[in-house]
Amino acid sequence: MSGIWQWVVFFVCLVVENWVWAASLRLEVDGSRVESELKELRRFSDTAAPDVTRILYTQSDLDARDYLRRLFKEEGLVIREDAIGNIFARWPGKSADSPAIGTGSHCDAIPFSGMYDGTVGVVGALEAIRALKRSGFRPVRSIEILVFTSEEPTRFGIGCLGSRALTGVLKPLDLMKLLDVNNTSFDQARFAAGYTDKLENIELSESYYDGFIELHIEQGPELEKGGIDVGVVTAIAAPAQLEVTFKGDGGHAGALLMHLRNDALLAGAELAIETEKAALAKGTRDTVVTTGSFDIAPNTVNSVPRHAKLGIDVRDIDEQRRDSVLEIIISRAAEIATARRVEHSVRVLNKDSPADSAVELVRALEDSADQLNFSHQRMVSRAYHDSLFIAAKFPTAMLFIPCRDGISHRPDEYASEEAISKGVLALAHTLAKLSSAAPQEDEPDL
Amino acid sequence: MSGIWQWVVFFVCLVVENWVWAASLRLEVDGSRVESELKELRRFSDTAAPDVTRILYTQSDLDARDYLRRLFKEEGLVIREDAIGNIFARWPGKSADSPAIGTGSHCDAIPFSGMYDGTVGVVGALEAIRALKRSGFRPVRSIEILVFTSEEPTRFGIGCLGSRALTGVLKPLDLMKLLDVNNTSFDQARFAAGYTDKLENIELSESYYDGFIELHIEQGPELEKGGIDVGVVTAIAAPAQLEVTFKGDGGHAGALLMHLRNDALLAGAELAIETEKAALAKGTRDTVVTTGSFDIAPNTVNSVPRHAKLGIDVRDIDEQRRDSVLEIIISRAAEIATARRVEHSVRVLNKDSPADSAVELVRALEDSADQLNFSHQRMVSRAYHDSLFIAAKFPTAMLFIPCRDGISHRPDEYASEEAISKGVLALAHTLAKLSSAAPQEDEPDL
Repeated sequence: MSGIWQWVVFFVCLVVENWVWAASLRLEVDGSRVESELKELRRFSDTAAPDVTRILYTQSDLDARDYLRRLFKEEGLVIREDAIGNIFARWPGKSADSPAIGTGSHCDAIPFSGMYDGTVGVVGALEAIRALKRSGFRPVRSIEILVFTSEEPTRFGIGCLGSRALTGVLKPLDLMKLLDVNNTSFDQARFAAGYTDKLENIELSESYYDGFIELHIEQGPELEKGGIDVGVVTAIAAPAQLEVTFKGDGGHAGALLMHLRNDALLAGAELAIETEKAALAKGTRDTVVTTGSFDIAPNTVNSVPRHAKLGIDVRDIDEQRRDSVLEIIISRAAEIATARRVEHSVRVLNKDSPADSAVELVRALEDSADQLNFSHQRMVSRAYHDSLFIAAKFPTAMLFIPCRDGISHRPDEYASEEAISKGVLALAHTLAKLSSAAPQEDEPDL
Repeated sequence: MSGIWQWVVFFVCLVVENWVWAASLRLEVDGSRVESELKELRRFSDTAAPDVTRILYTQSDLDARDYLRRLFKEEGLVIREDAIGNIFARWPGKSADSPAIGTGSHCDAIPFSGMYDGTVGVVGALEAIRALKRSGFRPVRSIEILVFTSEEPTRFGIGCLGSRALTGVLKPLDLMKLLDVNNTSFDQARFAAGYTDKLENIELSESYYDGFIELHIEQGPELEKGGIDVGVVTAIAAPAQLEVTFKGDGGHAGALLMHLRNDALLAGAELAIETEKAALAKGTRDTVVTTGSFDIAPNTVNSVPRHAKLGIDVRDIDEQRRDSVLEIIISRAAEIATARRVEHSVRVLNKDSPADSAVELVRALEDSADQLNFSHQRMVSRAYHDSLFIAAKFPTAMLFIPCRDGISHRPDEYASEEAISKGVLALAHTLAKLSSAAPQEDEPDL
């Protein structure tokens, strides 16, 4: 047997093998259980349903963590938490000392947002493990759920706090410098929440994970519009955030004549409009700029504003183009400050590089989707994820599911039970495959 | 004796009479005591010195009221408080049943402001009474200090709450509809502060005061610039306040493409800039417009703003011109909402008419200044005062003293001990004169 026949037999074997393997898994996902657990999780919120507000180390956040730990324990997972509350829930494999296969996402939520962002990747990961357990599957490598601390920047002004710390992008000294709006230090906040371990113990070793997959809602309209079951993320867009402060003299709204004013709010308002212009001037849909936060002082109707602080978010899949937008905004801020005779300062809060997914994980996800007869599509993530930082240290990929109208960070954010179930099934398949890989000779022990 | 000699004797007698009367008062003002009481009052603040933040019914406000009541009691004044905490401290005259002579101001302070706005008119009024007592003066009509509740609009969004209620501009039903940002009703708030009397008992009868004088810092630069000791206010400018709300769909700052957005903050920023244009377009220094408050939601850097609420303050000494500015702002808001595809609403929070001072009180103040050899100047108040509302019911005037650089509503607001002492002396003289007037036959009893 040689030539073409050799190849035909090889491919037939491959297909049969895949089919047998996939069939042998007999995975069944309990979508309604996931849905009801997500609804239960939504209850832990500082604002009334359907809004979700779950900010780092608030009682709602701590209650949500309790609830998740309870769910993980019910499934017999081995739980550990690090010094800032990243939660690790591990299903030990036969080769427990080998690098694990990680999966997970976050459970915090910006004010007045929805119930699917992040949480689908946490509860979905748990359901993937339950489905694998129900099928009788036993992993070689351990499978571990990772619930990231503070993916959202709400409290300390910096997103992906947990994954930045896990991968050494944020060092202990960086963490200790963080202050929230009430001047509570990060250390005070984590201690109050019961996390008292040393910050030095957070960073993961290079060999901690053999691969990491994050399941997430798309937060954009493409999958739903195309009727596609799952999206396989090949790259995560490069985000940057600026904080611009304007400072004027303030004064009485009645007594201070117009020509004597240097109004900080008006400087901020002009800059906000300039940020929009800077994005539109690039003429591409991939450049987005948002003035997302805007705080003025004293913020009373009868007083000329003395301070204005803007939080500006700039993203692009092209890092160079994004940086050119940053430069335009920074120079506009200076021009406005001069024209309006206000002091100003600019801080670049973060300016991360885009991340590429690991090719072998992208293929593994696509294989799973093929085996399950799910339509799939490669795509770029415009939103920020912990996977952006995890990808710098471990082979990483993301799996997207469609969400209604592409809406996110709003109370009406929605992903159907069917969409979630398909995502969980594809995740479970992929985890099974990755965790079945035999340890390499040269693989370091943990 | 007739003709010109008659007039000469008349004027000589008038001058001698005035001189004898003024000399007989032998008034001495203890400026350093006023200064130290103002400093003591500054301590009751929710923010650290030199900032003052004293918001209606907070502990700081209640502590300040306690302190003032203690000072009033030490001087033997008869104290009463009404259902919303307006404090009346009366020095009973020989004709205790006649309408009284009122004086006073407020002791609340907007966030991060200074220690002289309002308080000078309260502590200064007390020192005026002390000076009169020390001189052996005994009033015919009672002299009463009135400390107005919530001149600043910080908590319930409406300024001059106390004087509006005292003069029937705000009725009990209007008060009961008020809510603060935490949705605490005005009634809940006043009950918690210990004010439980019926709101129906607040409004003063037409014959309560025979005259009212408010001593206040100028909050503008004119007196200081001209080296003038005191300003006699002939009119108070007409203020109006708008609340404009924009509502968009919000969304994720990374995932929501620019052309799909209807960003509420950008609509608000455009309107803020339009408010400035509307003021400048009038080409007069007397038109001032301020976007003093600006609140957005969810106010996180990674979220497209969904709500923006602007508090806009419009003032002018010409009511018609002010109203034309209001109309321009309201129509710009509608245009911006249409262009940016956001919903919007406009509420006129208040739109008061300007007030004129009582001619006889203006003259009485000018006479006092002349007798004391103080330079004086007639002027218009561009700032809002309780006297605006009191003037609609009782003969009213205001006495201004210079403040440094015309600065107010800021921690560096400052009036010198000398400036305050002169104001208090002029006030005491005028109170003596007004309270010496014999009751009229037809004067109603209280």
